[in-house]
Amino acid sequence: MNQATPCPPFPSLPPGSAPVACVDIGGTKVAVHIADADGECAKIVEPTVVQGSRDALAKQVIGLIERAAAQAKLDRKQISRVGVASCGPFVVQDGFLELAAPNLCGGLANGASGLPNDWLTAPIEAPLRELFPFVRVENDAVGALEAERRWGALHVAGSALRHCAYVTWSTGIGTGLCVEGRVLRGKNGNAGHAGHIFVSRDDSARCGCGNLGDVEGLVSGSAITRRFGPMGYANAASLFNAAYAGDARAVSIIDDLCDIMGRMLYNLIATLDLERISIGGSVYWHHRDYLLPRLRRVVQGKLPALTDGCEIVSVGLGDRVGDYGALALVA
Amino acid sequence: MNQATPCPPFPSLPPGSAPVACVDIGGTKVAVHIADADGECAKIVEPTVVQGSRDALAKQVIGLIERAAAQAKLDRKQISRVGVASCGPFVVQDGFLELAAPNLCGGLANGASGLPNDWLTAPIEAPLRELFPFVRVENDAVGALEAERRWGALHVAGSALRHCAYVTWSTGIGTGLCVEGRVLRGKNGNAGHAGHIFVSRDDSARCGCGNLGDVEGLVSGSAITRRFGPMGYANAASLFNAAYAGDARAVSIIDDLCDIMGRMLYNLIATLDLERISIGGSVYWHHRDYLLPRLRRVVQGKLPALTDGCEIVSVGLGDRVGDYGALALVA
Repeated sequence: MNQATPCPPFPSLPPGSAPVACVDIGGTKVAVHIADADGECAKIVEPTVVQGSRDALAKQVIGLIERAAAQAKLDRKQISRVGVASCGPFVVQDGFLELAAPNLCGGLANGASGLPNDWLTAPIEAPLRELFPFVRVENDAVGALEAERRWGALHVAGSALRHCAYVTWSTGIGTGLCVEGRVLRGKNGNAGHAGHIFVSRDDSARCGCGNLGDVEGLVSGSAITRRFGPMGYANAASLFNAAYAGDARAVSIIDDLCDIMGRMLYNLIATLDLERISIGGSVYWHHRDYLLPRLRRVVQGKLPALTDGCEIVSVGLGDRVGDYGALALVA
Repeated sequence: MNQATPCPPFPSLPPGSAPVACVDIGGTKVAVHIADADGECAKIVEPTVVQGSRDALAKQVIGLIERAAAQAKLDRKQISRVGVASCGPFVVQDGFLELAAPNLCGGLANGASGLPNDWLTAPIEAPLRELFPFVRVENDAVGALEAERRWGALHVAGSALRHCAYVTWSTGIGTGLCVEGRVLRGKNGNAGHAGHIFVSRDDSARCGCGNLGDVEGLVSGSAITRRFGPMGYANAASLFNAAYAGDARAVSIIDDLCDIMGRMLYNLIATLDLERISIGGSVYWHHRDYLLPRLRRVVQGKLPALTDGCEIVSVGLGDRVGDYGALALVA
């Protein structure tokens, strides 16, 4: 359904750079790649571990870094810097960031998320700092925003845009926000959790964070499975395939999802007076030609003084934005 | 209904400062005061002129500055700086800001706002710059935010808070936003128009900006008159008085207004990871003891990783926050 979009070549680190590990933690999979001055030299992807004790995820990440390093014929000790782009939010525990992410921690919504664990948080920064000299953990949408501003659709005429956002429509919904050229972080680095805002008062869908009817609870990949699985659409792919085949109910469901996501995009513009938003994530990326005009239509005409000067575009870094996002944190 | 809240004394400009004019343009009234090193020396308040040609408002403001200066025994030429805190949004026309405010410009919503003019914009910066050497025009909520961070509830233990917002619940709804110590402005200085975000899909109420069912269209002072006037509540005062007297329908309407405003406050916290929000404005200020606990209750428990560390408080500068806001722009 989608036009072929060329993705820029994977950026290389400056000559002589020591190798870095780039970790992308999502609700569905964990990707680790090793990069150095010659570009990407190894990559491993695995389903995210969400079972066992609450340090299981950190152990998985460390194991993946070691295996990817070995693939690149490196010892773990040769890895100088680790960038972790993860779904959030984070909490600070004894000075280190832990993940309190609705798509990882089953204890946050009293089991409503269906995750097979009762974690309230999962450690990540502390165990990595025991092994590596430099560790930077950021929200994955912040990493993707930085990558889009350096190498992707938020880099225009040789410069990073000053007022912009990256939005991911994936297993969860995340946003990275930039105003006056500065990436917004907030008091605990959790700015950009606009996936958990309310644009409707429909409280029939519980989000993994516990909220009833926030954007992520209504439209994320996992929400689509939870809400429309019982209607015969096992996941986002089957819902979209039904719509493409002419199923009127599926078309109407997707129109409704676009109305909700479009309102979230509009809310970001009205709140931050942005000049461009780029959208990626697995749900969006696979169906971008169908979704982009529908999302634009929802935004268009609302408060023209703010929306007229704001473009909505597809992610420039395509389905590799997660890899680039983790790299942007350490490059 | 409200506790007496002492307002800090009006701040003086540094010794030897030339007099400044502070202009506060709202949907209901325009206030102009003159301040110098001895504090406030004259003040005039008038209903906002929203009839006649589109430069009528600028002429009113200039006339008020001249009369206030005369009251202070000053000539207009002795006024060195003019700060204008106005309801927005703004558009840039030939390099100067003009107001495109739904509460002033009747042409924006095809007459649905009920305003007696067909203005799409009203000039303000250009006519003032012809007469005064320094003019600064900002959104009134940005001015109020700066004043609250210098002298009010967003100034804590001798410092301005770094992650905070000021919200006005008045004729319209406005927000001033600050992250990492920087006031957010956006591409045209219109960041903070969160009063025009959607937190519901109830499209029965048209906002002055043309949106159907945004926050301002549902809960602002003018929206209360439009929506509930036909039910016998002529304005916000009569709605609240009915609730205080035990009218169950009025109580239920106000609970609903608080749910909408509370969702807007929550959306700001989830988007920006704030540490404190202060609320003012005529609707809020007159009924703050009734409204504050209801608003807090809506926010509480939503995404605790972000909301737990964020306080919601009443404006420290009380009903003088507009005067202080205009002063903060030139002090």
